[in-house]
Amino acid sequence: MNKAELLQTTNEILQEANQEDMEVLTLLLNGLKKKQNNKISSYIGALLHAEGEYLEESFSIKIPNTPIIQNALNIVHGGITATLLDSAMGGLAHHILPPDKAAVTTEIKINYVAPGVGKELSCKANLIHKGNKTIVTEGKVFRDDGTLIAHSTASFFIINRG
Amino acid sequence: MNKAELLQTTNEILQEANQEDMEVLTLLLNGLKKKQNNKISSYIGALLHAEGEYLEESFSIKIPNTPIIQNALNIVHGGITATLLDSAMGGLAHHILPPDKAAVTTEIKINYVAPGVGKELSCKANLIHKGNKTIVTEGKVFRDDGTLIAHSTASFFIINRG
Amino acid sequence: MNKAELLQTTNEILQEANQEDMEVLTLLLNGLKKKQNNKISSYIGALLHAEGEYLEESFSIKIPNTPIIQNALNIVHGGITATLLDSAMGGLAHHILPPDKAAVTTEIKINYVAPGVGKELSCKANLIHKGNKTIVTEGKVFRDDGTLIAHSTASFFIINRG
Amino acid sequence: MNKAELLQTTNEILQEANQEDMEVLTLLLNGLKKKQNNKISSYIGALLHAEGEYLEESFSIKIPNTPIIQNALNIVHGGITATLLDSAMGGLAHHILPPDKAAVTTEIKINYVAPGVGKELSCKANLIHKGNKTIVTEGKVFRDDGTLIAHSTASFFIINRG
Repeated sequence: MNKAELLQTTNEILQEANQEDMEVLTLLLNGLKKKQNNKISSYIGALLHAEGEYLEESFSIKIPNTPIIQNALNIVHGGITATLLDSAMGGLAHHILPPDKAAVTTEIKINYVAPGVGKELSCKANLIHKGNKTIVTEGKVFRDDGTLIAHSTASFFIINRG
Repeated sequence: MNKAELLQTTNEILQEANQEDMEVLTLLLNGLKKKQNNKISSYIGALLHAEGEYLEESFSIKIPNTPIIQNALNIVHGGITATLLDSAMGGLAHHILPPDKAAVTTEIKINYVAPGVGKELSCKANLIHKGNKTIVTEGKVFRDDGTLIAHSTASFFIINRG
Repeated sequence: MNKAELLQTTNEILQEANQEDMEVLTLLLNGLKKKQNNKISSYIGALLHAEGEYLEESFSIKIPNTPIIQNALNIVHGGITATLLDSAMGGLAHHILPPDKAAVTTEIKINYVAPGVGKELSCKANLIHKGNKTIVTEGKVFRDDGTLIAHSTASFFIINRG
Repeated sequence: MNKAELLQTTNEILQEANQEDMEVLTLLLNGLKKKQNNKISSYIGALLHAEGEYLEESFSIKIPNTPIIQNALNIVHGGITATLLDSAMGGLAHHILPPDKAAVTTEIKINYVAPGVGKELSCKANLIHKGNKTIVTEGKVFRDDGTLIAHSTASFFIINRG
C-alpha cells in the first residue's frame, strides 16, 4: 500500500476498533517508531518492545505482556516465550564472543511449566559451557511475580562474521 | 493512544518511512483487519498472516517471509520458526482431540539445520504418539524451494476444556 | 582379582544363585566371550548382545530384553533405551561419513512413550540432515510387537579421525 | 547354562583373558555379589557400581569409569552418561514424592560438552519445577577433576504406585 492507502486503512481499522484493537495498534505503531529511531535493530524486537541488558554474567530481556503475544486463551503464545529465550540466550552468546565472531542457534529445548500471564515476562540467560566451536546456555522465563514459566537449554555454533 | 493520536502517529511514521517500513506497516494493518473480521482468532496469527489446514493426517501452516519476522541479518528469527512449529503441532494435537479436550505444550525441542530465507515458510506437523494423557508430535519447517530449515518434536498434555 | 579368585567368586555366586542370577551370569559370560573373539568392539555392546546392520538408508540395532537392562519394576531402564538410540544414530552417522571422519554426539533428546517390555528391543535410525559440520538424525525404539516405546533426535559433530 | 557350564565358560574366558578382560570380569562378578546381597536393587545399578545419596536438595550418583562403560575410543559411552543422568534425576523425583507416588521419565535431553574420561563420573540432579502432575529436573555430570561433561533436563510424570 502507498501512504494514502495506509492512512485510509488505519482510519478503517479505527472505526471498527474495540479497546483491545486500540491497545494493539498503539503498541505496533510505537514499536515502528522505535525501529525508525534505531533504538532497536529488528522489527520483531521493536514490536515486542524488548529491553535487554547484560548484568552479572547473565543476559536478561523483558517484554510487556500484551494482547499481541497471547493465544486465543489470553496466555502468552509458547512461540513468543521461545522467541524471548532464543533472543536472551543468543544475546548472552554474542556478549561473550569477540567482535569478529557470531553465534548461530543450532538447537533449543524448552520445558513449559506454568502459563505465561501477568504484566510482563522477564528472561534470564546463563552460560553452561563455552567451547572453541560451540556454546551451551540455559534460559529461564519468569512472570513479574517471580513464578517460573519456562526453562530452556540451547546450543550455539560459533562462526566467523562475514 | 486515542484515535486522533493513533492517526497522528501513523502520519509521523509515514513521513520517515523507507520502503521496508511501508511494507511492514502494510502487513501489520492488513493483519489487524483480518483479526477484526474474525478471520484469525489471535493477533499473533493475524500479524504473521498464518494460514493453516489439516490434510492427509498432517497439519500444515504457511507464513510469508517478511521483514517483520527477520533478525538483523535478514534471516527468519528462530523464535518465529518456533512459533510456527508450536502452532502447527498444537493445531494437529487439537485436531485429533474431541471438542471437550485441549492440548497444552509441555516441551518442545527444535534443531535448526539451515537459515530461514526465501518467500515463505511452510510447516508440517505429524503425529508420533497419542496416549490417554499426552500427545507427542513431529514438525518440520521448509523453505519454498523445499529445503528443510528446522525439525522439531514436542509433547502436549491433554486437559479438559473449561 | 586374579584367576583363582575370579573362579572362587564365580563359585560363590553360583551357590547363592537364583534362576535370574543364572540367566544374568550366562549373558555376561557369553558377552565377554564375544568380546574376546572380536565379534563386538566394546564391552558394553558385547554385554548388551547388540546386533546392528545398515539396510535401506536406516541403521538398526536389536538387543534382547533381559534382567540385566531392567529397572526394579522389570521395565527396560531409560538409560539403556538411550544407549540403544545413541548407538544406532551414531552408527548411522558413521555409516554415511567417509573413513577419515568420525561423528561425536553433541545432544540427544528422547521422548519415552510406552514401557520397554517384551522379548527384544529394536532401534531404527534415519537421517534428518547432513551438513558440512553436523549431522541430525532421528531414532525410534520398538517392542517386538511393533509398539513404539521411544522417539529421539540427536545431533552429531563431524570431526577428523586422529 | 547350568552351573557346571557357567564354571566351564568362566575357565575358558580366563585362559584367553588379557588384563582388561580380568578387570571387567572382576567388576561384573563383584556387581553380581552386591545384587545377591541386596545392596543394590537392579542388576544394572550393581554392574555399574552406582552409589547414590540425597544431600542438600540434590540427588547425586557416582560410578567408577571402567572399560565396561567405554566405547571403542576409551571414552564413556553417551548412553551410560544418559543412564547416570536418568537415574539421578529419577532418584531426585522419587525422593521428593510421597511413598504412594512414583515418577516415570517422559522425556530427557542431554547436551554432551566434554569427553567422559578420568577415574569416576559423578552426577548431580536438582529440581527445576514440581507440579501436581509433572516434575522437571536438571542434571549435570562431572569428571573427578570437576570438568562438566554433560548437562541435562528431564520431565517426569507422577503416577500412583500399584
